[in-house]
Amino acid sequence: MLPNKKIIDELKKLAIKAKNNNEVPISAIIAKKNKIFFSAYNTCHKTNNPLNHAEMIVINHALKETKQKFLNEFDIYSSLEPCALCASAISFCRIKRIFFCAYDKKFGSIINGAKIFKIKNAMYKPKIFGGIEEKFFSQILKDFFKNKR
Amino acid sequence: MLPNKKIIDELKKLAIKAKNNNEVPISAIIAKKNKIFFSAYNTCHKTNNPLNHAEMIVINHALKETKQKFLNEFDIYSSLEPCALCASAISFCRIKRIFFCAYDKKFGSIINGAKIFKIKNAMYKPKIFGGIEEKFFSQILKDFFKNKR
Repeated sequence: MLPNKKIIDELKKLAIKAKNNNEVPISAIIAKKNKIFFSAYNTCHKTNNPLNHAEMIVINHALKETKQKFLNEFDIYSSLEPCALCASAISFCRIKRIFFCAYDKKFGSIINGAKIFKIKNAMYKPKIFGGIEEKFFSQILKDFFKNKR
Repeated sequence: MLPNKKIIDELKKLAIKAKNNNEVPISAIIAKKNKIFFSAYNTCHKTNNPLNHAEMIVINHALKETKQKFLNEFDIYSSLEPCALCASAISFCRIKRIFFCAYDKKFGSIINGAKIFKIKNAMYKPKIFGGIEEKFFSQILKDFFKNKR
């Protein structure tokens, strides 16, 4: 299963846009049948809201737009391994597949940390594809934090 | 450290109200210096949104009202052990203390499941008080699901 190249390219553009707007360069896209439904980058800084992760923004948008309780026809793409908040939201919404790029040892909760989908009695488990274009998406984050110091 | 009795009584009223409105009887209160700031019960059914957990509603409200990025002067009370979504939100918002009532073997992520605050490299860890009036809050849930079958 290959991730959709157009969507990954869009994730890149969004991460760069985030950086240029002084936001941590993390982006997410929710897609249906390989077509972008909604895209966003994290706005925690601008909105002063620590829950406005890119994934949460696209999920909340899709829930609102579709009025569906379950987003089981949707895939989510994220530039960074989702944290426990976003991974849980993905699970509660029954999103079909997760494609993520850079790994995150600090907050990541799929391969790292809470490993949300490996928990016994856990909720719905999507298919997971990680490490897509790792180099680009980890480098943009490293550069961002380096310039912040 | 004793949980505030008035707040627990309010949690009970809210859980009953939820049940009467055909929502899973789970309630939450965000409080500052032992005073209720905002209270809610889960509205997943009514709003057709699987992320409208009681805790998420009160946290989002407090973020919006205070315009603060960190809710570190606030405590959260929940009628049920928070799930991984809510526990992560509590952590990202740096809420001071969690008081919760019934334990939740299925989705609970504090004592059970993902054990969000026991993860290495986890984020901010609040003080945690669990099992408050366990009997009342687990019984109302059991009765609710029994009547649903």
